[in-house]
Amino acid sequence: MQVDHFGFKNDKHFNQRYLIADQHWKKEGGSILFYTGNEGDIIWFCNNTGFMWDVAEELKAMLVFAEHRYYGQSLPFGANSFKDSRHMNFLTSEQALADFAELIKHLKKTIPAAKNQPFIAVGGSYGGMLAAWFRMKYPHMVVGALAASAPIWQFEDMVPCGVFMEIVTADFRRSSPNCSKSIRKSWDAIHRLTRNSTGLNLVSEALHLCTSLKNSQDVQHLKDWIAETWVNLAMVDYPYESNFLQPLPAWPIKVVCQHFKNPNVSDTELLQNIFSALNVYYNYSGQAKCLNMSETSTSSLGSMGWSYQACTEIVMPFCTNGIDDMFEPHAWDLKDFSNDCYRQWGVKPRPTWITTMYGGKNISSHSNIIFSNGDLDPWSGGGVTKNITDTLVAINIAEGAHHLDLRANNAFDPMSVLLARSMEVRHMKKWIRDFYASLTKKH
Amino acid sequence: MQVDHFGFKNDKHFNQRYLIADQHWKKEGGSILFYTGNEGDIIWFCNNTGFMWDVAEELKAMLVFAEHRYYGQSLPFGANSFKDSRHMNFLTSEQALADFAELIKHLKKTIPAAKNQPFIAVGGSYGGMLAAWFRMKYPHMVVGALAASAPIWQFEDMVPCGVFMEIVTADFRRSSPNCSKSIRKSWDAIHRLTRNSTGLNLVSEALHLCTSLKNSQDVQHLKDWIAETWVNLAMVDYPYESNFLQPLPAWPIKVVCQHFKNPNVSDTELLQNIFSALNVYYNYSGQAKCLNMSETSTSSLGSMGWSYQACTEIVMPFCTNGIDDMFEPHAWDLKDFSNDCYRQWGVKPRPTWITTMYGGKNISSHSNIIFSNGDLDPWSGGGVTKNITDTLVAINIAEGAHHLDLRANNAFDPMSVLLARSMEVRHMKKWIRDFYASLTKKH
Repeated sequence: MQVDHFGFKNDKHFNQRYLIADQHWKKEGGSILFYTGNEGDIIWFCNNTGFMWDVAEELKAMLVFAEHRYYGQSLPFGANSFKDSRHMNFLTSEQALADFAELIKHLKKTIPAAKNQPFIAVGGSYGGMLAAWFRMKYPHMVVGALAASAPIWQFEDMVPCGVFMEIVTADFRRSSPNCSKSIRKSWDAIHRLTRNSTGLNLVSEALHLCTSLKNSQDVQHLKDWIAETWVNLAMVDYPYESNFLQPLPAWPIKVVCQHFKNPNVSDTELLQNIFSALNVYYNYSGQAKCLNMSETSTSSLGSMGWSYQACTEIVMPFCTNGIDDMFEPHAWDLKDFSNDCYRQWGVKPRPTWITTMYGGKNISSHSNIIFSNGDLDPWSGGGVTKNITDTLVAINIAEGAHHLDLRANNAFDPMSVLLARSMEVRHMKKWIRDFYASLTKKH
Repeated sequence: MQVDHFGFKNDKHFNQRYLIADQHWKKEGGSILFYTGNEGDIIWFCNNTGFMWDVAEELKAMLVFAEHRYYGQSLPFGANSFKDSRHMNFLTSEQALADFAELIKHLKKTIPAAKNQPFIAVGGSYGGMLAAWFRMKYPHMVVGALAASAPIWQFEDMVPCGVFMEIVTADFRRSSPNCSKSIRKSWDAIHRLTRNSTGLNLVSEALHLCTSLKNSQDVQHLKDWIAETWVNLAMVDYPYESNFLQPLPAWPIKVVCQHFKNPNVSDTELLQNIFSALNVYYNYSGQAKCLNMSETSTSSLGSMGWSYQACTEIVMPFCTNGIDDMFEPHAWDLKDFSNDCYRQWGVKPRPTWITTMYGGKNISSHSNIIFSNGDLDPWSGGGVTKNITDTLVAINIAEGAHHLDLRANNAFDPMSVLLARSMEVRHMKKWIRDFYASLTKKH
């Protein structure tokens, strides 16, 4: 793959990984589901996108999973890929979309029967944004896109910056109002408990931290880590035992909230409850000897690459006020954010670029995109949850967390996700039908 | 303007020039015609796009003319802009389109009444390609595009490589079959006349060349220069006296062909006729003391930048066979072309990229683009001359040369161009009406 699609000085190439499954593919009347890989190892996404496998036979579909550059094994400069801003310079969504376009051309060239078949983009989360954007920018490459849990409006001021954490909070409140209330109280409790070195040790022990807290900076890190844990739980609050970001029980928030039944407990009791709750997320297997603050989810996600992308194009304003949400108040400060980015990566974010490039809320001239969102998913706050036109449709999944619809069929799936998947398949079948109808018309 | 929209390492900016005319603009119910500048000085394009001025009042339109980066005064690195492939690296159509998008955002921000008005892209030739591509890639920025004489299919094998020179030939044949026949004969005549140094001097004198021919390389240059002259004449074969590439009489090919009435003349007579014909193009004013082979058209066009673009993205295969056209046979040889590009600019062309990026012939999912072409214009061979859908429409101008429709109204305009312009305005009015209707619906 070309390292730089948008400049000619650098003519280097790199190996981009993609996976193909063709056991259900039909050369006559078939289709190709093309997963627009996001910020992680493509094998991991492949294993967590059971939906594509489940519908392959019905759609006579070949499955293609394309790895996003700078993730997994698709590293433009090998081990040096994250070395500095010069090597990182080709990590953008535009380059990734161009990769997908070139890959589709390559597949059409090397697999003759694929040449006259419809490609459909499928993706979740950032991959869902890429699927939608790919249909917008390269409609000649895919007849449509399923953009699952794609927060394409989580930019600038298109949605309030607080909406994300409000949904996280609502998820915990839904289990029990005392749950979110307890968590809201916990930040001050932690603050009070960690005022001296005795307290720091006490908290470190109570939470079984692998590395003891040394100072107030560590305490801030602890709070951030705990907050991120609640966020992740909201994302993966699936109705059955699963292992996406971590191995977890069914409805994990419900399990976590069993430890927060009474908000009127002492600080040390609350601390103990936090440990029990964290243990649900970090130690469902029961194997962990201590809790490691440097990890919050699977290592299959590429945290380096994502940190760079968030510091350049994918600038998503988040904020909390401690009233509408259960977190400590934190305003969105672009200047601070920008300075941090410059320190870390030597680049400055361009927070308005994504809207310039991809149209923001003004996307009604496009067609054939399904935006699916789960009501439990904090990312639904920045997603498209109302139909824009007849062919830009929103599908909302009442009991769904983060792209539940992309996961494999499960006996515990709520009706809402079964319905969503069947609507998705219906749209895809229409796109495929329209494609073959227009082929016939041409000949 | 950002030098690099697609990478974050380079955060430099440069001054991009644009022109605004608002004497006919209405803040209520108005529109904005946005000229997507092409490979030259924007003032020159502004002065040669009378159509926009002529329709401004009717459309209550503000006129904006945006200069293309690396042309005119919009040089990203000032005098160093053409220094090497590192400085040239940001000269691509994608960067130019992103410039236009950023400029429109800037205008909406700084001219409040423009915020809720429809922008329409207008361009001719490469600028017409940009107008069409801009509507395809940034439909949230413009409600439609007028792409005049835009050869968006003059790439890869979408049209036969010979079609361009065949149309040039047809233009001369239309004046009189003897005209194209004489020109076809002239190449061998020149070859025979320049076999020795006496001949070289004789030809140099007969053609009043500013610099005498010294060798066979110069002779090749002479033939290329003459061929390019016939090509340029085909492009600017306008029905009235004009000054686009050069000051010229009305229907200049007719004037040129008066010197080629008899194809059965001696080589020296034919040479004399060529001189008379060249004189129409290079010395209509009668001021030229000699003919300068280093020039073929106005210096307002940026030949450096265009040469680079033709060597990178805008790779247009041309060929001749001497049978269907009046030129010496010359096959399209990508390898030769690529080697020449590498020698000249240190870059290699990517001949399939434009199709990957802009969809080639598979563009039916887009909307609101007018493709206008003149039947006399050699570029119409690579243009869209049939309707693709109800909103991707072709307008053909029987007596039109290169984007005649974009030129100012003229008493000698043939009916075909008057009709074309009125259809163009009708489409634009519909786009504007639809825009305001959708605004009303939103509120």
